Amino acid sequence: MIRTVEQYLESLDDGRVVYCLGEKVKDVRTHPTISTIIRFAAMDYALPNDPKYRPLFVTQNEDGEDVNFLFTAPRTSEDLLRRRECFVTGIRSGGGILLHCMGIDALAAITVAANKMDSNVATHYVERVEAYRKHLQKGDLGITGAMTDVKGDRSLRPSKQVQHKDFYLRVVDRQKDGIVVRGAKMHISATPCANEAIIVPCRTHGEEDKDYVLSFATPLNAKGITLLGVEPVTRTHGEEALWDYPRSAVLQPTECLIIFDDVFVPWERVFMCGEWQFSQDITYAFASFHRLFGASKMVAELDMMAGIAALMAEYNGLEKYTHIREKLAWLATYAETVNVLGRSSCIDCVKEPASGMMQPNWMHTNIAKFTFANNWHEACKILQDISGGIATTVPTFKDWSNPEIQPFIEKYLGGKAGVPTVNRIRAARLVKDMTGSYPQVDHIHGEGSLAAQKMFLYFSADWDKYKAAGMRAIRVDGWQDHPIYGSLLSPETAVVPKMPPIDTSYKL
Amino acid sequence: MIRTVEQYLESLDDGRVVYCLGEKVKDVRTHPTISTIIRFAAMDYALPNDPKYRPLFVTQNEDGEDVNFLFTAPRTSEDLLRRRECFVTGIRSGGGILLHCMGIDALAAITVAANKMDSNVATHYVERVEAYRKHLQKGDLGITGAMTDVKGDRSLRPSKQVQHKDFYLRVVDRQKDGIVVRGAKMHISATPCANEAIIVPCRTHGEEDKDYVLSFATPLNAKGITLLGVEPVTRTHGEEALWDYPRSAVLQPTECLIIFDDVFVPWERVFMCGEWQFSQDITYAFASFHRLFGASKMVAELDMMAGIAALMAEYNGLEKYTHIREKLAWLATYAETVNVLGRSSCIDCVKEPASGMMQPNWMHTNIAKFTFANNWHEACKILQDISGGIATTVPTFKDWSNPEIQPFIEKYLGGKAGVPTVNRIRAARLVKDMTGSYPQVDHIHGEGSLAAQKMFLYFSADWDKYKAAGMRAIRVDGWQDHPIYGSLLSPETAVVPKMPPIDTSYKL
Amino acid sequence: MIRTVEQYLESLDDGRVVYCLGEKVKDVRTHPTISTIIRFAAMDYALPNDPKYRPLFVTQNEDGEDVNFLFTAPRTSEDLLRRRECFVTGIRSGGGILLHCMGIDALAAITVAANKMDSNVATHYVERVEAYRKHLQKGDLGITGAMTDVKGDRSLRPSKQVQHKDFYLRVVDRQKDGIVVRGAKMHISATPCANEAIIVPCRTHGEEDKDYVLSFATPLNAKGITLLGVEPVTRTHGEEALWDYPRSAVLQPTECLIIFDDVFVPWERVFMCGEWQFSQDITYAFASFHRLFGASKMVAELDMMAGIAALMAEYNGLEKYTHIREKLAWLATYAETVNVLGRSSCIDCVKEPASGMMQPNWMHTNIAKFTFANNWHEACKILQDISGGIATTVPTFKDWSNPEIQPFIEKYLGGKAGVPTVNRIRAARLVKDMTGSYPQVDHIHGEGSLAAQKMFLYFSADWDKYKAAGMRAIRVDGWQDHPIYGSLLSPETAVVPKMPPIDTSYKL
Amino acid sequence: MIRTVEQYLESLDDGRVVYCLGEKVKDVRTHPTISTIIRFAAMDYALPNDPKYRPLFVTQNEDGEDVNFLFTAPRTSEDLLRRRECFVTGIRSGGGILLHCMGIDALAAITVAANKMDSNVATHYVERVEAYRKHLQKGDLGITGAMTDVKGDRSLRPSKQVQHKDFYLRVVDRQKDGIVVRGAKMHISATPCANEAIIVPCRTHGEEDKDYVLSFATPLNAKGITLLGVEPVTRTHGEEALWDYPRSAVLQPTECLIIFDDVFVPWERVFMCGEWQFSQDITYAFASFHRLFGASKMVAELDMMAGIAALMAEYNGLEKYTHIREKLAWLATYAETVNVLGRSSCIDCVKEPASGMMQPNWMHTNIAKFTFANNWHEACKILQDISGGIATTVPTFKDWSNPEIQPFIEKYLGGKAGVPTVNRIRAARLVKDMTGSYPQVDHIHGEGSLAAQKMFLYFSADWDKYKAAGMRAIRVDGWQDHPIYGSLLSPETAVVPKMPPIDTSYKL
Repeated sequence: MIRTVEQYLESLDDGRVVYCLGEKVKDVRTHPTISTIIRFAAMDYALPNDPKYRPLFVTQNEDGEDVNFLFTAPRTSEDLLRRRECFVTGIRSGGGILLHCMGIDALAAITVAANKMDSNVATHYVERVEAYRKHLQKGDLGITGAMTDVKGDRSLRPSKQVQHKDFYLRVVDRQKDGIVVRGAKMHISATPCANEAIIVPCRTHGEEDKDYVLSFATPLNAKGITLLGVEPVTRTHGEEALWDYPRSAVLQPTECLIIFDDVFVPWERVFMCGEWQFSQDITYAFASFHRLFGASKMVAELDMMAGIAALMAEYNGLEKYTHIREKLAWLATYAETVNVLGRSSCIDCVKEPASGMMQPNWMHTNIAKFTFANNWHEACKILQDISGGIATTVPTFKDWSNPEIQPFIEKYLGGKAGVPTVNRIRAARLVKDMTGSYPQVDHIHGEGSLAAQKMFLYFSADWDKYKAAGMRAIRVDGWQDHPIYGSLLSPETAVVPKMPPIDTSYKL
Repeated sequence: MIRTVEQYLESLDDGRVVYCLGEKVKDVRTHPTISTIIRFAAMDYALPNDPKYRPLFVTQNEDGEDVNFLFTAPRTSEDLLRRRECFVTGIRSGGGILLHCMGIDALAAITVAANKMDSNVATHYVERVEAYRKHLQKGDLGITGAMTDVKGDRSLRPSKQVQHKDFYLRVVDRQKDGIVVRGAKMHISATPCANEAIIVPCRTHGEEDKDYVLSFATPLNAKGITLLGVEPVTRTHGEEALWDYPRSAVLQPTECLIIFDDVFVPWERVFMCGEWQFSQDITYAFASFHRLFGASKMVAELDMMAGIAALMAEYNGLEKYTHIREKLAWLATYAETVNVLGRSSCIDCVKEPASGMMQPNWMHTNIAKFTFANNWHEACKILQDISGGIATTVPTFKDWSNPEIQPFIEKYLGGKAGVPTVNRIRAARLVKDMTGSYPQVDHIHGEGSLAAQKMFLYFSADWDKYKAAGMRAIRVDGWQDHPIYGSLLSPETAVVPKMPPIDTSYKL
Repeated sequence: MIRTVEQYLESLDDGRVVYCLGEKVKDVRTHPTISTIIRFAAMDYALPNDPKYRPLFVTQNEDGEDVNFLFTAPRTSEDLLRRRECFVTGIRSGGGILLHCMGIDALAAITVAANKMDSNVATHYVERVEAYRKHLQKGDLGITGAMTDVKGDRSLRPSKQVQHKDFYLRVVDRQKDGIVVRGAKMHISATPCANEAIIVPCRTHGEEDKDYVLSFATPLNAKGITLLGVEPVTRTHGEEALWDYPRSAVLQPTECLIIFDDVFVPWERVFMCGEWQFSQDITYAFASFHRLFGASKMVAELDMMAGIAALMAEYNGLEKYTHIREKLAWLATYAETVNVLGRSSCIDCVKEPASGMMQPNWMHTNIAKFTFANNWHEACKILQDISGGIATTVPTFKDWSNPEIQPFIEKYLGGKAGVPTVNRIRAARLVKDMTGSYPQVDHIHGEGSLAAQKMFLYFSADWDKYKAAGMRAIRVDGWQDHPIYGSLLSPETAVVPKMPPIDTSYKL
Repeated sequence: MIRTVEQYLESLDDGRVVYCLGEKVKDVRTHPTISTIIRFAAMDYALPNDPKYRPLFVTQNEDGEDVNFLFTAPRTSEDLLRRRECFVTGIRSGGGILLHCMGIDALAAITVAANKMDSNVATHYVERVEAYRKHLQKGDLGITGAMTDVKGDRSLRPSKQVQHKDFYLRVVDRQKDGIVVRGAKMHISATPCANEAIIVPCRTHGEEDKDYVLSFATPLNAKGITLLGVEPVTRTHGEEALWDYPRSAVLQPTECLIIFDDVFVPWERVFMCGEWQFSQDITYAFASFHRLFGASKMVAELDMMAGIAALMAEYNGLEKYTHIREKLAWLATYAETVNVLGRSSCIDCVKEPASGMMQPNWMHTNIAKFTFANNWHEACKILQDISGGIATTVPTFKDWSNPEIQPFIEKYLGGKAGVPTVNRIRAARLVKDMTGSYPQVDHIHGEGSLAAQKMFLYFSADWDKYKAAGMRAIRVDGWQDHPIYGSLLSPETAVVPKMPPIDTSYKL
């Protein structure tokens, strides 16, 4: 089925235990900051119900039922390109997709691993995985995936940890109907807005750690589960939030620390339990699918970044300067490199042999993701450099809303004629919101911008000394009067006359 | 005189008009976030009154009076090294110095310009500047400096601006006793905590813009002055702030947008008014002194950054790994390069001819400042990379303070045995506070860390293809069976047999 | 027609005037270094005559004649992908393509410009261009393209040059049957091996420079043309060259400075003469086609670079170390990024409206080329870093060939057991040949390698100081005994007790 | 004593066995390329005999004898600054110092180790080391130091090597009068021009490798020693070499592979033999002294690099452009950073406790050296970028010397008026010589320079798309008509109306 937005919102009233900033959350849909998460997660139900986007997001399963395309396993390059298109569209829309992004990749990962285990060690996991896929399709559930353990001392394996043995999630009891699990998963995106979660291991485990080799699915309101929500970027909400934090107000962090305090999981939802030889398969499969998501979500982020840079340059009256254009070109190059590489990973995809699923090209998704991640801070610096110090000292909504001071702000923070002051301020708010807090901007603009410093460096350098060194080296006049280079001894006069002549009989 | 902390605090109750987040501030000393600024500014009075630091901070003026060393003009390399030592000590202490940092450099700048003007165009500014210096010394006043205009369209000069003519501060009336000024200065540090401000121009002006060539001093509670305070990094205060924002809680942004709405300045406080030929002198002198401050304040910041990186590595159990050590070495190299260059600017200082003051070496201060600024974002990336995703998903004071969830946090967020969980959390809070908000960290750690991606890239690459290309190039067997490189045509077989023999008669 | 290798070689005996290292070249086919250029150029005739590659390189023109595919105008994305495949195959083979690379892109550029001029200013250039294309197809001629002028003072336009007016190629006489041209074109690749050249302007010219707006074709043995060949990378030849310079011996620089000393060109070979409004079209069209070539040739170069790096790592016994793997991953990432972007420029191609030709995507070819060019020096550093000092101190063929010292070299320059010493030496010769001369390698390895220095930096840093700064900042014990950080004044004790309490009535 | 240049030259006629390019060298003083090395080594005797430089280079030993200052052990910061001044002066002069650079640091290293061993394990090495120091002072000998072993498989320790046991130099016989050693040392600078060599181990060895723990001194003409000289950068000599290779012709590579084929060393010249616990001390001490040399030699190199860049910019008429000035500023910043850090290592020096010698600050020398080495390739790119394609296609001396073609070169390769063409050519020759061979330059300039590509990137980017993304994010009109961003679904309309209202009772 394809649920409506209303049905989805309704489903979240399920008794789940969530904390945010130390307070218990009464209803995730009405909490000032968590409700933002719900709002963009709900786009995953708005999009498939919209006539324009339905063809992209909705497909039929083998029973002829309308289901979310993301719940199907990719079999062709076209499937991967469509999956990517779903990701890009959702994120460009300002939500959507993020609800499912972890979950469907975890679903792909357990599909790979189940096929591999069944054919190698005669388990029956494929059946369970496919039954669970049907369950998701029929209920049109919001699904996240949980991978990262809290890890404790990173240099020790799970069973060798000193303080306690629960730094990696593990089975503490195997019962007739199911298992009992204990531990915690960290940085789990899309948790407050998901109905269920698929759990997978976060590393390769050896035989001695086989109690930690564990994959299963569970509703997030299961007994024993506590969700500790991450600190929001902004504690404001509503119009103030949209004005002051244009990115974060629509995209608050969704991560939770999920505590499993002896949670029961029935066997039909267990997809791996002790098969340590396959722990690497599940983590690699998850990673290879999930890097495609990573390589897609940034397309919209980088469009926005290049665009806000171009707008700030215009608003400041700087768009004609070569050094500004070089910086803008850098941002556009960054955006398109990531875009092209991500798409290429779907074109040059590779069939996974056990499951027959089509995987994105590992090399290309990883290059896309790495290129994005490794250059992000540099991109922030460039955007701040173009924007100027206003990227951090820009007034807030509360400043702007006070009629006593608004006229001063309106008058003095104007940029180029024809651009309303408020546009420039809102653009600066986005730069501030995207690129980090005060020290980042202050450190590059405080005591003079990078550009100002470069020109000071040029004017401060001792060019006479350098040029004397250069002229002496190429034996061109002009260095002889320099205090350092002019009076040096030289091999030509001090040594050469005393040398015997060259022997030219060698065959060099 | 040397004022006490109490005297300084008392002096701020002077009727100044300050706004913060849209609200009028009743008393800067009791406002939740601005009081933080006052607190570290007051260190400028605590230090000279402390027996250990008095010899560094206190000197005698020509009248034999005890005065703050920073109010004297540097005459020797030792003076500059002492000035730098004041800066570094103050900032390492967690405050101090920042109150005076802009003001004393503006004082140096007007000293240079006054000498230059007096000897070139027979003005009498030196007298006024020295009288003002005495005023500062006797009152032991907190003094800021205001340089940056709001600028409007950056491609247009002041008098050519379209929307209005006040985008650069200007004289609107010349009266018998003084002048009336209008405009605004932006990003002015240390404003809420200063008693007075010295205003200097922010760029070289030509003759047509001579109304904008303007330097003067004024108390900050003068009629017509409104201070619009910048958004604080955190709106929390007290213990919560210290826990959640260890850096910002002691070092909130101090910048104000200062509005001059027809403010009167008596002639004895005017230090430049229309002498456009000297506008460059004042801006260059300010810049060259102030970059020394810039090159000093970062010493403490980078000590702290390298240190928190080393602590996070230990807390995570990672300090033995080569790639972590390479990153730590990078941070230490960064810290010491900046440190050495800043000090060197005092050793290789240059006498300013008009005033006889000793200026820091322009090249060295600028390299120090630029090296710091240009690498800051990379340093943040490295620190986040070492710290892991916890650099953004770390719990808050409010989370920690709730006894229902503290045990979960205590248990699961532990690192290496022997390190209290709370230490690791507080370290992560500092990383978060220093290095920027959520997107920075999420973008490098989301979907797998940089290190994980590098290893994926290594394992995903088509080494057979690359090595076949290499072996074919060096004519070493092993490439012949490669599908691409094995079957290529080669000049040796396809062309060489058809070529005539080499003519060896040339003298190459 | 499709010429044979023999026919091509024969055609070069045409009386052309070529100099190399100051000597007049008697026959380009037998000169020790220039013959190398001829050898790899001849691959352009070997490939189309080889059954395996004929389908790629040979097509039929509208007269049904077999012609080289590169002489046709691309009309579809598939044509561009095939063009790219020709480029990549030729260069991977170790020659081929380079003979035509400039010429066919100049042919594309004049096709665009001719169509534009004819439809805008009623010239009849299209006819001439198409007649010339037929001439090339029928003669299967080797064709280069000449763009870059010598330029003189870069800040002056052609007609404003001071020393003489010939810094840009120009028409000095317009006659009944043709024109007379004077000037020089510089850095022109593939000149000694080409039969003819197409000349295009190198920049946008205004009306006052219309004598410099000039495009035409000419045989390279025309009266008045002198070719000054560039210095070869190596002056050795034959087996010695292949051993010592594995890359350069098959790919010597082909550039010439072409002197046009009053050369006559008949009107039917003139494709632009004074139409200054279109000078930009021809330069842009050339650039956009030629960057595709640029983005293709490097695919083979980077395969080889990544491969030789992997081989050196193995030969040295280093392939298991993480820091070596990170470097190898960097090289593979670099190679594939360039590869994917180049291909994408053919997929996302754009129709040029005047001529109907399909152009590669400007953004993508330019990103590919820029990414390659901008990272090349870094790649060389990484390759040298992996290889070690042997990348410059490696013995030569002459060393190896002396039986008195070969046993020493054989014994002492061995690497990992199982790898013949000679393989390791030949690999190091390629690294030396590709990555630059002695200073490059010496500067990174002299006085200790980069890796050694990083570890020294780690061990030399004052971690106690840094960690004390970190611990003090997060208020965790351990800093109190540090000589610097332990005894600082602190706002908490020195100021806070003197501050009034916080006013909590603000709405932050 | 202080020898004359003539005495030094005479001393090299000592029967040593040297090979270069496979030929046995009859006399190092007359060989076309090796004589260059002798020439600049002889500066080490010219400088102390020159009245201007004698005070710097000559001091008195405890016997009151005039000796080379470099043969004394540094005891103070001033000694280190003077040592550095010797280095910088010698290299700026174009020779000098390089003869001693390795040897005196090896002498320092054995001084440290001897003191440590004698006081810990009651050996008597100090006596031998000091006797050897006297021998050097009295004979005023040219002395090199040999550290790097050939190493074989880098992942195996010396005694575990598979092919043979001589990959690290070792004792093969301990006799009554001395020891017999076998092995080879690689990349040993200043060998053909030195009289003697001090050998030290290149790594820390454990007890099982104690036969490899070996330090001694030996004349280079000892029986059993064969020197295999490295390939010269240029095989030209005399005026041609100075013209074509302005740097290499005065600074050819000096490295040799030194073969020790069962060489006898008397006990009084053995400074370590099996004391494996001290192998780390000797390598660390050598490294810390030798990095100071590394940090000094580059001062002259970088002066020259910044200078030739400034000259090329002028010769090309480009010195006024901002992007050129930014690049020049980068080069000057690089030069001064390395300079300041090197000097600082002498100011912040550290007393070595065993020997009482003053060591340069490890952190600062290592930062200086690392900064130099790690940025060298980038600097070469920048220099090539400023210079243009002529950095590789520049004519040679042989071209210039042919009167038939010189007029063409003279005319067409001119730059800015007033600059002789030959100056520009010689400058380009230096750039080519310093920055690497053909591929380096061709890859950045081929198919368009970096600057040209940046502007193409700017003009090719889809700014409409990016700006639409930016405007939509900041809720400013202008994006609504964009084909992608204009028609997206939005949470505000698609979701928000269906959400329950915010609960404002939380304490955020």
